Amino acid sequence: MLSELILGIRAQSSLSISQAISLIESDRGKGSQLLADLYEHTGNAYRIGITGPPGAGKSSLTHNLISAYRQKGDKVAVIAVDPTSPFSGGAVLGDRIRMTSHYSDPDVFVRSMATRGGEGGLALKTQEVGEIFDAAGFDVIIYETVGVGQIELDIIQATDTVVVVLVPESGDEVQMLKAGLMEIGNIFSINKADRPGANKLMITLQNFLATLSKDEDNWSPQVVHTVATEGKGTDELVSSIDSHRSFNEKQGIHKQKMEERYRQRITELITDDYVERFWDDANCLKLRRELKKNHHDRTSPYDLAKQMLSR
Amino acid sequence: MLSELILGIRAQSSLSISQAISLIESDRGKGSQLLADLYEHTGNAYRIGITGPPGAGKSSLTHNLISAYRQKGDKVAVIAVDPTSPFSGGAVLGDRIRMTSHYSDPDVFVRSMATRGGEGGLALKTQEVGEIFDAAGFDVIIYETVGVGQIELDIIQATDTVVVVLVPESGDEVQMLKAGLMEIGNIFSINKADRPGANKLMITLQNFLATLSKDEDNWSPQVVHTVATEGKGTDELVSSIDSHRSFNEKQGIHKQKMEERYRQRITELITDDYVERFWDDANCLKLRRELKKNHHDRTSPYDLAKQMLSR
Repeated sequence: MLSELILGIRAQSSLSISQAISLIESDRGKGSQLLADLYEHTGNAYRIGITGPPGAGKSSLTHNLISAYRQKGDKVAVIAVDPTSPFSGGAVLGDRIRMTSHYSDPDVFVRSMATRGGEGGLALKTQEVGEIFDAAGFDVIIYETVGVGQIELDIIQATDTVVVVLVPESGDEVQMLKAGLMEIGNIFSINKADRPGANKLMITLQNFLATLSKDEDNWSPQVVHTVATEGKGTDELVSSIDSHRSFNEKQGIHKQKMEERYRQRITELITDDYVERFWDDANCLKLRRELKKNHHDRTSPYDLAKQMLSR
Repeated sequence: MLSELILGIRAQSSLSISQAISLIESDRGKGSQLLADLYEHTGNAYRIGITGPPGAGKSSLTHNLISAYRQKGDKVAVIAVDPTSPFSGGAVLGDRIRMTSHYSDPDVFVRSMATRGGEGGLALKTQEVGEIFDAAGFDVIIYETVGVGQIELDIIQATDTVVVVLVPESGDEVQMLKAGLMEIGNIFSINKADRPGANKLMITLQNFLATLSKDEDNWSPQVVHTVATEGKGTDELVSSIDSHRSFNEKQGIHKQKMEERYRQRITELITDDYVERFWDDANCLKLRRELKKNHHDRTSPYDLAKQMLSR
């Protein structure tokens, strides 16, 4: 049964890909087996992260990138983990309709993933879905997330090229500096660059970039002006991504990124399974008994943890 | 040395409290010992969560709540984990100056905690800082976070009463519905209620609340209009929090919340320590060896995890 699914994924069947994603989301054991078997077919896709504050136009930009890569003949998969993204169903109807124009193209696959509910291991799951797309032969995988929470940043940091989208009117430059969004950008897209405030944002951004000590690999973040709703600046953005990609490959960073993703996945897998083993019947019972007591009769959680761990 | 620190905390010395928080942040072992020893002195503070989108006025509202509780004679501690909060230093100077008017009051303690960097276990750490305030005799602990990421929601969900702050002009009702922010609110504050759109927001909100199946404990979320910058609506908000508090206590929900916090803490403590033990020299070496290989020569992370776990 798994071998059939693998054949389907390799043949890029939408049905098989969807089934595989469902499997990952619902059946940890079988999902892991599938990913173990798919591993040898992975390692070819390039991962791009698109992030930025809500309303910056990340989805429109993603839409333009899909078109651009399709014109080059690349197959494109999108993983939208942004609650505000039209891809994941978060925005107004007009946007959503515009976005679906790609859905009829078999070489474009869009998958949204919930940031709510399945909180545990979301970063791992988005990577696993990426592995399936990779094994299915997609050339480019775009991760779109809103750049706010730590989980979202973890997702984006695992990509090969990070594009941070900013808008003039957001005016929240300071806020974003604080939020750690800026440090992870390889490319900055000033979107809606025709609006007032674009120059001010540009200056703020350049001042900020000047304060950065060049990272060890000596990439200087590039700034691109876009008007995503009109498709303006897309070519510049693509060529900026391309040059970061060649840079990555020349400097061995792409390989490092793959190592990091491997490390991240194994760490999460071990954590999940190992901790699950800890909570056997005896330990669960011990905790339940403690919880039945009143607050002041309980052993402190620190002492109880110590006791349980020394068993 | 720890016993001296405990005496200082119990005497509500700002210096001791600050030292204790630093200890928690820097020295896991001693921090746990301190918290174990403090445990018997905790269990008295009431925890209020203030959350909402950036710019909703959470900090101004918090400011008003501090004043209101101080007038009642309650000691108030604030834990700001919001990167956009003036408390945590994220906002413009004017705001920050306004907020510091409480700093000279020894019965008000404001602590900001970074959402960046120390990603691991932030929810645990905010709870631990809360424990210190609790042991120090603060009556009310306010957690202020921006309601976006999962970690921030985890922090807020561990409080006894959750206030969700909304603004008319945010107009992102749909987005917030998606983001899971709405489901956790016990009280909704429509802030800047004098601005256009307040009625529309009120209607959207009431429609939403009507769709909620009453939660098991039958609390109907209350809606309060505020204009935080002018102090309007603060009394109503406080009395709404008070009535949720009596409700919680009558229904045994406050006890349940304490149990949940205990369970959450023990789970995190076990996860951290147990996983740390797994990564002994042998396992670390095994992973390093695997990473040295090329992508296609590596064992898949799933198979490697299985091998390591079955050792």
